[in-house]
Amino acid sequence: MEELATEKEAEESHRQDSVSLLTFILLLTLTILTIWLFKHRRVRFLHETGLAMIYGLIVGVILRYGTPATSGRDKSLSCTQEDRAFSTLLVNVSGKFFEYTLKGEISPGKLNSVEQNDMLRKVTFDPEVFFNILLPPIIFHAGYSLKKRHFFRNLGSILAYAFLGTAVSCFIIGNLMYGVVKLMKIVGQLSDKFYYTDCLFFGAIISATDPVTVLAIFNELHADVDLYALLFGESVLNDAVAIVLSSSIVAYQPAGLNTHAFDAAAFFKSVGIFLGIFSGSFTMGSVTGVVTALVTKFTKLHCFPLLETALFFLMSWSTFLLAEACGFTGVVAVLFCGITQAHYTYNNLSVESRSRTKQLFEVLHFLAENFIFSYMGLALFTFQKHVFSPIFIIGAFVAIFLGRAAHIYPLSFFLNLGRRHKIGWNFQHMMMFSGLRGAMAFALAIRDTASYARQMMFTTTLLIVFFTVWIIGGGTTPMLSWLNIRVGVDPDQDPPPNNDSFQVLQGDGPDSVGGNRTKQESAWIFRLWYSFDHNYLKPTLTHSGPPLTTTLPSWCGLLARCLTSPQVYDNQEPLREEDSDFILTEGDLTLTYGDSTVTANGSSGSHTASTSLEGGRRTKSSAEEMLERDLGMGDQKVSSRGTPLVFPLQENA
Amino acid sequence: MEELATEKEAEESHRQDSVSLLTFILLLTLTILTIWLFKHRRVRFLHETGLAMIYGLIVGVILRYGTPATSGRDKSLSCTQEDRAFSTLLVNVSGKFFEYTLKGEISPGKLNSVEQNDMLRKVTFDPEVFFNILLPPIIFHAGYSLKKRHFFRNLGSILAYAFLGTAVSCFIIGNLMYGVVKLMKIVGQLSDKFYYTDCLFFGAIISATDPVTVLAIFNELHADVDLYALLFGESVLNDAVAIVLSSSIVAYQPAGLNTHAFDAAAFFKSVGIFLGIFSGSFTMGSVTGVVTALVTKFTKLHCFPLLETALFFLMSWSTFLLAEACGFTGVVAVLFCGITQAHYTYNNLSVESRSRTKQLFEVLHFLAENFIFSYMGLALFTFQKHVFSPIFIIGAFVAIFLGRAAHIYPLSFFLNLGRRHKIGWNFQHMMMFSGLRGAMAFALAIRDTASYARQMMFTTTLLIVFFTVWIIGGGTTPMLSWLNIRVGVDPDQDPPPNNDSFQVLQGDGPDSVGGNRTKQESAWIFRLWYSFDHNYLKPTLTHSGPPLTTTLPSWCGLLARCLTSPQVYDNQEPLREEDSDFILTEGDLTLTYGDSTVTANGSSGSHTASTSLEGGRRTKSSAEEMLERDLGMGDQKVSSRGTPLVFPLQENA
Repeated sequence: MEELATEKEAEESHRQDSVSLLTFILLLTLTILTIWLFKHRRVRFLHETGLAMIYGLIVGVILRYGTPATSGRDKSLSCTQEDRAFSTLLVNVSGKFFEYTLKGEISPGKLNSVEQNDMLRKVTFDPEVFFNILLPPIIFHAGYSLKKRHFFRNLGSILAYAFLGTAVSCFIIGNLMYGVVKLMKIVGQLSDKFYYTDCLFFGAIISATDPVTVLAIFNELHADVDLYALLFGESVLNDAVAIVLSSSIVAYQPAGLNTHAFDAAAFFKSVGIFLGIFSGSFTMGSVTGVVTALVTKFTKLHCFPLLETALFFLMSWSTFLLAEACGFTGVVAVLFCGITQAHYTYNNLSVESRSRTKQLFEVLHFLAENFIFSYMGLALFTFQKHVFSPIFIIGAFVAIFLGRAAHIYPLSFFLNLGRRHKIGWNFQHMMMFSGLRGAMAFALAIRDTASYARQMMFTTTLLIVFFTVWIIGGGTTPMLSWLNIRVGVDPDQDPPPNNDSFQVLQGDGPDSVGGNRTKQESAWIFRLWYSFDHNYLKPTLTHSGPPLTTTLPSWCGLLARCLTSPQVYDNQEPLREEDSDFILTEGDLTLTYGDSTVTANGSSGSHTASTSLEGGRRTKSSAEEMLERDLGMGDQKVSSRGTPLVFPLQENA
Repeated sequence: MEELATEKEAEESHRQDSVSLLTFILLLTLTILTIWLFKHRRVRFLHETGLAMIYGLIVGVILRYGTPATSGRDKSLSCTQEDRAFSTLLVNVSGKFFEYTLKGEISPGKLNSVEQNDMLRKVTFDPEVFFNILLPPIIFHAGYSLKKRHFFRNLGSILAYAFLGTAVSCFIIGNLMYGVVKLMKIVGQLSDKFYYTDCLFFGAIISATDPVTVLAIFNELHADVDLYALLFGESVLNDAVAIVLSSSIVAYQPAGLNTHAFDAAAFFKSVGIFLGIFSGSFTMGSVTGVVTALVTKFTKLHCFPLLETALFFLMSWSTFLLAEACGFTGVVAVLFCGITQAHYTYNNLSVESRSRTKQLFEVLHFLAENFIFSYMGLALFTFQKHVFSPIFIIGAFVAIFLGRAAHIYPLSFFLNLGRRHKIGWNFQHMMMFSGLRGAMAFALAIRDTASYARQMMFTTTLLIVFFTVWIIGGGTTPMLSWLNIRVGVDPDQDPPPNNDSFQVLQGDGPDSVGGNRTKQESAWIFRLWYSFDHNYLKPTLTHSGPPLTTTLPSWCGLLARCLTSPQVYDNQEPLREEDSDFILTEGDLTLTYGDSTVTANGSSGSHTASTSLEGGRRTKSSAEEMLERDLGMGDQKVSSRGTPLVFPLQENA
């Protein structure tokens, strides 16, 4: 009889699992239908993610107050006194043995609230689900769909915003919040410990911006591509930075335990951990990307698109697991894996696999993102450990505003010193405005909600995500027109030298057109990398680029012949066409700007022309030439602005 | 310090999780690469699933004997005496509270073996994963990719094989195994209880055939389409039958507990449960399919393929959860949902979504299937509760052989009494031969391995799957040529009336061509359903078929106008073209057999022609006409065989 009872209980539990998952699926279905309605009616004041949150909120309220609290039925307090917590317990129940696994620690104050509604408990997922299942496809998709041309053109600024900016923002928010916490202690609003490292941790998790709403509207309105690249690149990379930063802060453990005072050794250890984890994850992601590229190049897998797609999917996923297994950050590894896959492997895939992989990850990304946002809405009511502290929340809103300002404006000022084409004021204001928080901040905040401080952070993060997504999401379109930012730009087209053909362009004159980096700005290390990539990596890993037999020194001729695919000899630049999704081909440029300057300045001539001009140094110069085209700044623009044309060869000093 | 230790332990556990998942991914990657090699070299003696099992086996051996047994470190026996098992335990560890969740019961004999290698434990998944995550995409794909034309042409036989055949096979195997068990008791090889219901349960789980290997080779060689349809249809439906049958047997609980004797009331209860679960799951699956069709029809979602694909995916998945939540069988519901989606929703999707959904489910199916098979290989060494009993295993092999024989031959004999085009001896032998067991048998067996009898069944099932997949997989090609079964058939083409143009066709003469059902054989209930589907369901749920305004009685004109989409009036038969993947269009038929009989027999004329001929009863007759074409038997063939042409209208008696 008892066996039957246990079986029935297990069945009941399984049914509740199904119902809770079903709730999410119906939520997502509802969201999709409403999104369609909004897209159909061209409603732009509410983005799908905001919508998903609202629906989640409504269902959360229903679950919280609408379902009976059939609690306590299947739990008990068995107060075994042990000296430590084991991950598995074997419990003897009247002669039968049952295995229990550790779920986590419960703070003593919450012991009673555990006796709540079963449904609420079921609906609250294991936070690891967010990190291990939902985030990877989102991040991979971001890397895989990166518009390389605009990204690389602004790489320096993006790196500065993502690394320096996030660090600055983290420290400023952390310090401001420490002030707020001090204030709360004085006022008597703080009932538990809240250390300086906790404040810094909050700064780190809340510094991960996620302008998904803004970018969706940018995409729809075809807003300025350079601004898009800056925002997108920053948000993708600062997610990675925030993850690694937060785990370094957790690892910061001063020598005297529980003093939480500054300790130089621990600080440098944290910095070391940051660098170690970041570079390790980066390497791991790139290496799996490269391995996939090699596999897809040297097997004829492209005859079987299904196998190819499956392999691509598995290799990308294994990056994540490999990084986690090695103690690095899977999400960061997956980002760089996505970028590498898009840069190399994509060129080796069959046409069918290209669309398959893109569509597969697009669907996964879409579902995961909307799931996270509807879960956020739900969590506001179903999560059982909320700590609402008005002072902390208001302080946090002020702090993220100030942190964002201290991140964007000074950094833009310094970047503008080095940039030929400045980041205009309207761009800076737009970047300031677009600092909304999303999935990553939430995932980082929910990962550990054991202590009082973490619970307060979680609640605050949730509210910040809500308000920034709703308010900024709704305000993007008015803001764009208020700041006079160009819309209706063809994303595969450069901003033209003269402004008359575009809808909006006022204010700061041609400088505000965006961050085109000229040759002087492309640092030599970047150029070095580019020519290395073009001459050696691309030919080795893909079917494109110049044959290795011409670029490698003659003594490794055999190796070069092995690695070079026969296609390369037939068609020295297939990449230009195949890659057109990402990088503009020279042909497009010529068509777009087909004016006399293009043909006049020589360096845009054909390969044979440059060979005859520059003789033995042909390979090098043609790579540099490609770089110019890839960076999309076309010499024609430079000359049209009256700058004397600088030949790549004369510029290496 | 203790907190740190717990955190480290959690980290270690997370790392092991990653490694175990990584193992599977690398296994799958290896399998994919080898499959490619095999396909490339046209190796047919080993199918990918067999390969996945071999790799799994190798890795299983390595894990079992190659990894150190770092055991006991993180577990303890806390012998709390409670009167029942709770699903959640709160344990007080020196002032801190930890939450534990129930994992399952452990048989006392296995208490020591739990103290094994951590890695082996991690690699052993929760059986529910197979049922709830891996099987649904496989089964949905089977339903979604069903070649409707050949399936419906042989529907009667398929249903007979799947329902009657599986029941016969289950009872024969169950009884034979009961004999074996009795024998084992006499010999003294049985150390624990093994009831008659256990034997029947074994019969049910082992009756689910899965000729995935055979069908893959059929596909590659383009073997006879009717034989393909019979095998595929049987295996898809008997999976569903086996699930429901096994759960009904479990529900069979005689009044006197533990007597396990025959009890008429309990038996009829089981039959009732079988019918209830089956029809409930069927209804649920069809209803979600219909709802999806309505949603895709009445919203203009097809402008946004991403939303459409996501919705399609979510609705299909929700079928599974909904059925599970209601106590029905999700896998069965998903099968019928897949069939409904292919029949109705598919026609409403945009072109992009059609390929997207197909590719998405193809990839999911491929990954899930190979995962299950490589897990099977692994489980032989890593699963810790094997019970190898040579007598039982040999008995089981004999029993499944006899069970399959008693299922195929008598049933084929009875079916041939009713069929105009008999199922030839070579087809029967091939069906007999193709009775291999696969994912479903495994999933059903692993679901419950608590008792001794179940563990023995699990081990035996695993071995049966291994040997049938390897031996039958390898023997399919020789068997096909030995049995003189036609290969190189165009799947979208009917077997021609004369045999000279095909590679192999000998033996039993034209009757062995396969199961074409002529009009007499299409039962009136099926025709009734077909005309209802064509006249009312298709126009309501899709953009095709005759307008409802003409098929519905005039008093529901308003409703008809609401439900009929404007496209229908423009193009009364778009379905024919859109659906060409599944159903052959008349145009194709005419092209293929463009001989005089086609145009001579009148009923294949255009709609206007038939209208003028048959006046007021036009709609009815055109539906019947469609049926002829859909069933693909083309009047031309009937007449070419010398049968007088029977007009649909004269045949309703």
